[in-house]
Amino acid sequence: MITIAVDAMGGDIGLSVTVPASVAFLERQNDVKLLMVGDEAKLQAALKSVNAPMDRISVIHASEVVDMDEDPRNALRHKKDSSMRVAINQVKEGLAEAAVSAGNTGALMATAKFVLKTIEGIERPAIAKFLPTTNGGLTCVLDLGANIDSTPEHLLQFAIMGSQLVQAVNPHIKTPRVGLLNIGSEEIKGNSTVKEAYHQLQNSQLNFIGNVEGDDIFTGEVEVIVADGFVGNVALKTIEGTVKMMGQIIKNEFNSSALSKAQGLIAKPVLAQVKKRIDPRRFNGAIFLGLRGVVVKSHGGTDAVGFNYALQEAYHEAKADILTSIQRGVSAHLAAAEASGVNIGK
Amino acid sequence: MITIAVDAMGGDIGLSVTVPASVAFLERQNDVKLLMVGDEAKLQAALKSVNAPMDRISVIHASEVVDMDEDPRNALRHKKDSSMRVAINQVKEGLAEAAVSAGNTGALMATAKFVLKTIEGIERPAIAKFLPTTNGGLTCVLDLGANIDSTPEHLLQFAIMGSQLVQAVNPHIKTPRVGLLNIGSEEIKGNSTVKEAYHQLQNSQLNFIGNVEGDDIFTGEVEVIVADGFVGNVALKTIEGTVKMMGQIIKNEFNSSALSKAQGLIAKPVLAQVKKRIDPRRFNGAIFLGLRGVVVKSHGGTDAVGFNYALQEAYHEAKADILTSIQRGVSAHLAAAEASGVNIGK
Repeated sequence: MITIAVDAMGGDIGLSVTVPASVAFLERQNDVKLLMVGDEAKLQAALKSVNAPMDRISVIHASEVVDMDEDPRNALRHKKDSSMRVAINQVKEGLAEAAVSAGNTGALMATAKFVLKTIEGIERPAIAKFLPTTNGGLTCVLDLGANIDSTPEHLLQFAIMGSQLVQAVNPHIKTPRVGLLNIGSEEIKGNSTVKEAYHQLQNSQLNFIGNVEGDDIFTGEVEVIVADGFVGNVALKTIEGTVKMMGQIIKNEFNSSALSKAQGLIAKPVLAQVKKRIDPRRFNGAIFLGLRGVVVKSHGGTDAVGFNYALQEAYHEAKADILTSIQRGVSAHLAAAEASGVNIGK
Repeated sequence: MITIAVDAMGGDIGLSVTVPASVAFLERQNDVKLLMVGDEAKLQAALKSVNAPMDRISVIHASEVVDMDEDPRNALRHKKDSSMRVAINQVKEGLAEAAVSAGNTGALMATAKFVLKTIEGIERPAIAKFLPTTNGGLTCVLDLGANIDSTPEHLLQFAIMGSQLVQAVNPHIKTPRVGLLNIGSEEIKGNSTVKEAYHQLQNSQLNFIGNVEGDDIFTGEVEVIVADGFVGNVALKTIEGTVKMMGQIIKNEFNSSALSKAQGLIAKPVLAQVKKRIDPRRFNGAIFLGLRGVVVKSHGGTDAVGFNYALQEAYHEAKADILTSIQRGVSAHLAAAEASGVNIGK
């Protein structure tokens, strides 16, 4: 049985997204219990209205909600009874294996870091996400915005965590290939940080295959792509924008004349399939890596389908016991680094 | 009459791309002359084989070619008679209004900077490109890789140049909206460089609308997007990768069964239209801004259709006299900055 704590109030919409998603998730996954955290009265009412299976749901009251645009420091200092924080507390206390929230990203990261602390050997947690490749696989990209101005040591730590995550979730991938996001494939490319990170990665025990560029994200040539959070976040948002733009172009072209509309009607089943394959909701759920607990961030504006995917993501991470893997990976690298005299950060 | 110098030997393919593209371009544009630079014998033979209109073509011999993977410093020091350099020399000597090359980007930038020098007030040239927006417009994005570790002053200079470029090419856009590529819309977001750039942009006379994110590139909310070259290059390559990935998904889905293949056949005219709209060849031609001369870089691996678009890009820049616009814009900003005590760099 896996227990997941859900910040039921988080996100742009809150209960009317998190509650139906949680119910759908429980129907799909029968080895799961949910601790749903939020305003008890409202939460009970919402659960009742959808006939939620209360044998696998516990409601935990939290009197506050972190606003979507609230300063993370404010949330951390003054909202100690927020649904977000109480959900993370469940993980800290060992009552849940993972926490999921669609709330304020900065506040979630700050709270998770404060409550759970980082794994020994990891200075900064990172945000990771699995993106689909054209050959049917997935690439884990990190950091997606938790850390700006990352040092080479941070990038190496991200690589270790990403590599362990991929192995834990896909045991058939023994030595995930790691690429460093850069602006050219040659070793001499990039700013001073990535140049130094290149050498550290090369000297590590990771399966580092070298620099990759933005157009390698989807080719499946690597299983892990490492970047500074500023660069990774720009890349992620650029992907979202490009997908949206192409969807719009396809829509416009099929709506451009009576004939094209008719052709679009005929091609509709295939176009629906394409739409499904690129549906961002299917890739909802960013993983906070490097903490002593599994925390998954859902997109704030997603609907119940998307939030369901974030719950699934948390379930997979918890089931794969990624914490133990990451801890083991970090320890092994620390030991190897110490033996060879390489500094990986702490 | 506009005269354009063409590095006929540059690119992955060379003459068999540049020559047919040049001929097609001359057929399209009757107010153009081309100075085609390269190995005279080979060039003459290639021109003859396609019955090129020699009344508007001059062949200029250059004995060397810069390799695609050659160290730019090597090209600069030891290949003074390369087709790339001789083409740029034509601009320097006032014999051509613009130079176009599909050669080694680093070498082209180094050579162009060395031969042409930068405009007064501009410390570093930038690479800019127009990308299509979903509302049918274009957004000018810079820098796309010429400068890594840009300072806030550089970002301001890029913004001035991009703004002037947009105005020169689209005289109906009087005050182009400028956005700073960042990882959130709030002023407090980003690394120290973009935070400082935000203030400098805000205090400038530009129509600065604030931070934009990767998913705003295609929305048409701004006409100019400014970024450090590392970030801009990652974004550009990520766009290319995403477009390719989506094309592959569409192809796979239409090939997935006999029925979907038949549906694809019916929808083919619309799909061809979609393909045309996102064809990267149509957006080929990156502009080197900030030099005392127009230089356009074509993608190294493009075909004759793509190289033709790069020639068109050079033609538009030369026709719009972007150099004068940029010079005027930089002077005005320098004067305003001096008056208000703001430092824009030099």
